[in-house]
Amino acid sequence: MSGAASFLRNAWFMAGWSHEVGDALLRRRLLGDPVLLFRKEDGGVAAMIDRCPHRFAPLSMGTRSGDTITCAYHGLSFEAGGACVANPFSDKLPKASLRTFAVAERDGIVWLWPGEADQADEALIPDFSALLVESQGEPLTGLLPMNAPYEFGTDNLMDLSHIEFVHKGSFAGRGVIFAGKHEVVTEGTRLRSNWWMPNVPAPGHTYGIYPPDMQTDHWLEMRWDPPASMLLEIGACPAGGNREGGVIVQQAHILTPETAETTHYFWATTRPAPSNHEGDRMLETLMGQAFREEDKPIIEAAYANLDGADFWDAGPISLQVDGGGTRARRTIQKLLKEEEAAS
Amino acid sequence: MSGAASFLRNAWFMAGWSHEVGDALLRRRLLGDPVLLFRKEDGGVAAMIDRCPHRFAPLSMGTRSGDTITCAYHGLSFEAGGACVANPFSDKLPKASLRTFAVAERDGIVWLWPGEADQADEALIPDFSALLVESQGEPLTGLLPMNAPYEFGTDNLMDLSHIEFVHKGSFAGRGVIFAGKHEVVTEGTRLRSNWWMPNVPAPGHTYGIYPPDMQTDHWLEMRWDPPASMLLEIGACPAGGNREGGVIVQQAHILTPETAETTHYFWATTRPAPSNHEGDRMLETLMGQAFREEDKPIIEAAYANLDGADFWDAGPISLQVDGGGTRARRTIQKLLKEEEAAS
Amino acid sequence: MSGAASFLRNAWFMAGWSHEVGDALLRRRLLGDPVLLFRKEDGGVAAMIDRCPHRFAPLSMGTRSGDTITCAYHGLSFEAGGACVANPFSDKLPKASLRTFAVAERDGIVWLWPGEADQADEALIPDFSALLVESQGEPLTGLLPMNAPYEFGTDNLMDLSHIEFVHKGSFAGRGVIFAGKHEVVTEGTRLRSNWWMPNVPAPGHTYGIYPPDMQTDHWLEMRWDPPASMLLEIGACPAGGNREGGVIVQQAHILTPETAETTHYFWATTRPAPSNHEGDRMLETLMGQAFREEDKPIIEAAYANLDGADFWDAGPISLQVDGGGTRARRTIQKLLKEEEAAS
Repeated sequence: MSGAASFLRNAWFMAGWSHEVGDALLRRRLLGDPVLLFRKEDGGVAAMIDRCPHRFAPLSMGTRSGDTITCAYHGLSFEAGGACVANPFSDKLPKASLRTFAVAERDGIVWLWPGEADQADEALIPDFSALLVESQGEPLTGLLPMNAPYEFGTDNLMDLSHIEFVHKGSFAGRGVIFAGKHEVVTEGTRLRSNWWMPNVPAPGHTYGIYPPDMQTDHWLEMRWDPPASMLLEIGACPAGGNREGGVIVQQAHILTPETAETTHYFWATTRPAPSNHEGDRMLETLMGQAFREEDKPIIEAAYANLDGADFWDAGPISLQVDGGGTRARRTIQKLLKEEEAAS
Repeated sequence: MSGAASFLRNAWFMAGWSHEVGDALLRRRLLGDPVLLFRKEDGGVAAMIDRCPHRFAPLSMGTRSGDTITCAYHGLSFEAGGACVANPFSDKLPKASLRTFAVAERDGIVWLWPGEADQADEALIPDFSALLVESQGEPLTGLLPMNAPYEFGTDNLMDLSHIEFVHKGSFAGRGVIFAGKHEVVTEGTRLRSNWWMPNVPAPGHTYGIYPPDMQTDHWLEMRWDPPASMLLEIGACPAGGNREGGVIVQQAHILTPETAETTHYFWATTRPAPSNHEGDRMLETLMGQAFREEDKPIIEAAYANLDGADFWDAGPISLQVDGGGTRARRTIQKLLKEEEAAS
Repeated sequence: MSGAASFLRNAWFMAGWSHEVGDALLRRRLLGDPVLLFRKEDGGVAAMIDRCPHRFAPLSMGTRSGDTITCAYHGLSFEAGGACVANPFSDKLPKASLRTFAVAERDGIVWLWPGEADQADEALIPDFSALLVESQGEPLTGLLPMNAPYEFGTDNLMDLSHIEFVHKGSFAGRGVIFAGKHEVVTEGTRLRSNWWMPNVPAPGHTYGIYPPDMQTDHWLEMRWDPPASMLLEIGACPAGGNREGGVIVQQAHILTPETAETTHYFWATTRPAPSNHEGDRMLETLMGQAFREEDKPIIEAAYANLDGADFWDAGPISLQVDGGGTRARRTIQKLLKEEEAAS
């Protein structure tokens, strides 16, 4: 992939939500490259470079018949495995095939492995089954564009203390106070950034379940796997009570580089209570608004404010709460060096 | 000219249709440089760099008196030959002149020679007199902008098999089938890319003359001269009949680089039958639509899909039908090398 | 500052009009860098880099309490001197401070010194007290954006002969003829570009005071100090009469680089006669219109017409009237070399 030096290759990147990939030819730029995604007749997902090897037209402008894609420019056809299977001008097929990608589908997520397919170990896919709550059906999901490198989103998510400042208008509206205990735990290449805030007013996600003035124990537990796949548990229970009986929401925050400077931000959330139409719309609105009106402007402004300088070269000062984001950046750097050494 | 390394200089480039160049000061970017065009009082065309040598204002923002152009910024005046003929601040004229270009006008086309004027041999101008059909008056003409290097347009035009795929909505609507014989002929620096398709349903250009279900012999004969001046004869006659008595249309497809990444696409066509207002409007609509809605989107998408990579570096696979475009690219490369060697 | 090689550092640059800097957090890009400006509680002006040293968010997106600015992202607070004074996550303050700038306020102008603060000698600030006419109150002021490097504005202003050509629709409407004497005087790093035009029709600034057909002696005296701080005296008196008794207007034309390619153009003017609402609106309209519709289009077109080439590399021809602009460019080059040598 272009920009290979700056992106991991041997890692699972989220390419989309399962429900986004259907019969239609979906073009999505991932790690700088145009990728064509569609659902095959056998139900699996096909992923290939969205560029005909003949005269480079996007195959997504072409047509589909079964699992065969025909280029809109000169009619070469390719099957989902990348092989050229028809040349309208000759019985001789050109010796060329499309680059394809290993893909896997789990927990409603389409994962793509940009590196060598034979290294694509599905056992490495982080578990997001927590999103699937049997009584609720599908989680609420979204995809938001972000004009900043994906690491700037990781920084944001791995330090949730920004909620108190950035999300004054949404999540922080109920008085969350980041006065509790924060710890960052390293487990191999996995990181955990956990907040434990005992005896605080009921946080926003308990709206309609706990009275606003009720004292609760509140936790935010973020699990990070490279490159930027995060699962967040948001919980609260009566102060001093049992966490298991509390109000718990599971969220996915997964970032995939679109280009070196832009990011696909995929989010999902379970519901604090059984699904109902009105509650779902409110929750979707809140999630989108929190990102679009609060996170996105400041993340993008901060990145733009570097005027092209490298993050580390700009000499950021580090606070204790930055541990998660900083370790995530360091882990990616370490994995990139390992990939370079191996190649 | 800027970008000299990538454009031929000792060649005739189309600067515009004759009817475009009149009394007004026309600025047109050609081969990366801003060029000022206007029609002199003697009827000839003046072409000069559209940049005052004093403080670089575009002369096209200035005023014209006779064949003298006065800069809008500080009032220096230049005659059509490029000499400075008035300085409002001194009787002493600055020792500076504008770069001018050799121009020639033939067959309703203004040709410009970006190289040294003394090498501008008018005998090298390709003949487009086929556009001038005595009974018809002026051919229909147009100019369309294309966001891709001009060679991408050449590829498109030298391989007309794309009609079957790209022009489903326009030219190909009558069932042209590229099942005939295709040959590419080299005549010095001239190329011919010819299709001969015997016994096919009457092609689109015979609309209203031949019944749609009539069998015809159909030909498409493209003549290419460097840099990208193409004359296309589209013909059809009753199957097994005499070509001379058939329905024949002559078209110009001439590409001039605006910049390294953008192109002026000039087109013209004669009519299949005597000129009439309704038929002309239909034909103009069809030509513009075929380019804007069919060729242009896919050519521009294909170029953009290279993400800045060089065409050859991207390793295009070659089909038999690509012979014309490929030889055209090779011919340009050869001529560029000769120019470099000579300078 | 970024782009340090191309901008003077040890010089006073205009950052804004005094009335622009108040309680609000004003972000203004100066010399390529984002600068935060606000008026402190003691009435002085604070100027600092508008970038939090923690995660680079613009501080101007934050909030202000007294002279303390709190970042909108994670809540670090900084006082006007640049020191970090609050960290919401720890009692320990990070060892980091914001870069601040020496500022001074004179004659209604906020001046900023991008270089080392200890070299910021206020005695070097050029005197613009001529703008302050006791009977008139504040001068009329404006700020206009220009898409060209600031030197292109200097060229324009140091050669007022362009008025005859560019300002046909505004200032030149009354028949100013640049047929007088022009001289450029060097006084250290200060330049003067003076026009003396005896016995010419009453110029535009005398409208309503002198009859249009009255013969006058007319002068335009431009004083330039580096980097681009210009004071212009526009005067006219009855032909052969006494200059002191004439109609005199004082104008500021001050250019500050926003980036290497864009400029803040600050202007101010006194009135030819006692202030009145209608006259002020007319004058403001005229000044803005002359720049936006006359100077700006041609300055920007001339700069764009260089297609990225360096001004000197493009080989401009020089006329006698260019002396002012050329010497200004040479003076800046000399000062830049001195700065490089000293560092």
